[in-house]
Amino acid sequence: MAVPAPGLPARVRIHEVGARDGLQNEKTAVPTEVKAEFIRRLADAGLRTVEATSFVHPKWVPQLADAEQLYPQLADLAGAGVHLPVLVPNERGLDRALALGADRIAVFGSATETFAARNLNRTVAESLAMFEPVVARAKEGGAHVRGYLSMCFGDPWEGPVPVAQVVGVAKALLDLGCDELSLGDTIGTGTPGHVRSLLAALNGAGVATDRIGVHFHDTYGQALANTLAALEHGVATVDASAGGLGGCPYAKSATGNLATEDLVWMLDGLGIETGVDLAALTATSVWMAERLGRPSPSRTVRALSHKE
Amino acid sequence: MAVPAPGLPARVRIHEVGARDGLQNEKTAVPTEVKAEFIRRLADAGLRTVEATSFVHPKWVPQLADAEQLYPQLADLAGAGVHLPVLVPNERGLDRALALGADRIAVFGSATETFAARNLNRTVAESLAMFEPVVARAKEGGAHVRGYLSMCFGDPWEGPVPVAQVVGVAKALLDLGCDELSLGDTIGTGTPGHVRSLLAALNGAGVATDRIGVHFHDTYGQALANTLAALEHGVATVDASAGGLGGCPYAKSATGNLATEDLVWMLDGLGIETGVDLAALTATSVWMAERLGRPSPSRTVRALSHKE
Repeated sequence: MAVPAPGLPARVRIHEVGARDGLQNEKTAVPTEVKAEFIRRLADAGLRTVEATSFVHPKWVPQLADAEQLYPQLADLAGAGVHLPVLVPNERGLDRALALGADRIAVFGSATETFAARNLNRTVAESLAMFEPVVARAKEGGAHVRGYLSMCFGDPWEGPVPVAQVVGVAKALLDLGCDELSLGDTIGTGTPGHVRSLLAALNGAGVATDRIGVHFHDTYGQALANTLAALEHGVATVDASAGGLGGCPYAKSATGNLATEDLVWMLDGLGIETGVDLAALTATSVWMAERLGRPSPSRTVRALSHKE
Repeated sequence: MAVPAPGLPARVRIHEVGARDGLQNEKTAVPTEVKAEFIRRLADAGLRTVEATSFVHPKWVPQLADAEQLYPQLADLAGAGVHLPVLVPNERGLDRALALGADRIAVFGSATETFAARNLNRTVAESLAMFEPVVARAKEGGAHVRGYLSMCFGDPWEGPVPVAQVVGVAKALLDLGCDELSLGDTIGTGTPGHVRSLLAALNGAGVATDRIGVHFHDTYGQALANTLAALEHGVATVDASAGGLGGCPYAKSATGNLATEDLVWMLDGLGIETGVDLAALTATSVWMAERLGRPSPSRTVRALSHKE
């Protein structure tokens, strides 16, 4: 029974990250043909933005070392209107992506110095300088550019992240030419008041809500409540990972991406259009869970697939 | 970092159900002394309403057959201001509870005919008739009475439950003399718009929000988002189960109670007072998980107890 709540967007664009953010966190690399089928099934389930892979150096992310082999196998999807963004860390990655015809790229920044140092081996300012030619050249080539911004709420070393600090880096990414932002709660500590506070501060700094996506992690079980707070603010782009891939709740290293199915269950109930067929999506996550040899952490996948 | 969101209650009363709703769903009975220590630890963690047990016939709920032995062991807690409500199914149960000095009782009704028939072996009207003398006598004895209302959103046999039907049974429970209601999403299918719609309909029928508690299950991952919607409506009584007891996400029979820790994490972040010490509560759930021989399904418990 769909019961809309007033003031929410009529339609939400789900930015599906399972094939990239999910699979890059697997201990062992998934075969290229399984990745291709996974992405194809996600598109068949109605997802229209499926982040496909990352053109990062294989030394850092061996799980996605097959980007050059995978991406060309998806050409028919791109031709059928499915967006297939790819992550590029630097100009070398951009070259590889553009050579294959990628028309949607994403860069991955940090709101905190500590995470920038640990993840990018740079200061925040240095990372922005590194992204500058990447974004500029991507835009020159007509590509759409997404700017991921991690650690927007809490940071494992720095604790709570001041809203003004996040706004500063967010503005800098947009000033470089990014078309949209994805605000990441990388360690999942954020709560709904913090979400509203950050969104209001971004608006106050001139960032329109329609350029903002949200990327919540369920490490503390907050992802869907935070998503609701963002929807109530008008945000209409939400990142999620099919089956909750990208964080195994059984592992110490759990990152706990919001499961796309849990999100779609809520959006369906709210009468918000997504274009996604939940049954087909759940079947895809069950299929992928079998390939990975463990059950999906998504509660909706478990509930729907355990039906008697 | 506490970042309050406007319009939310300043304080939330958590109605802790782990010792009753949680343990009654365990395959094997937990020893009475473990139950007593569990309840004592929950009170020590700051919970002020800890549902203690059920005076139901041991044939139906053998896990709680020790109610007569357990309840007297908690006398000092009751004296120290901790509310220890007990569930009573009928007059016989009420007699047993009153004989031990219980001053807070709860009855357990159903919003749907199918669940009333299966769980209570009665029609809804017959169950209300059964509760009538229970509530009247409890009130005469000065006890506070809570009316649980299950299947307020979806029913496994009937599907979505019409709001008007829930309002009718809710009003009937209040007319019997119940002091407060607990609206249960027993199978966890509800979403935030549905929550708002039901709360508005109850208000429209003359039920004040301060007589309403909410009891969400996380079967589809919706419990905390639904809680946020209820808080935004002004609800300030929320049921939750320490460690998420009462529904194992690994079992087919998962009922998936909202974990108290996940709730407290959100409320702490929103600057809403609960009186609960999250570290002490988490330690209690870890201790209980060891007694039960399996990890807590609460994401916050997992995140906090896996800290390196």
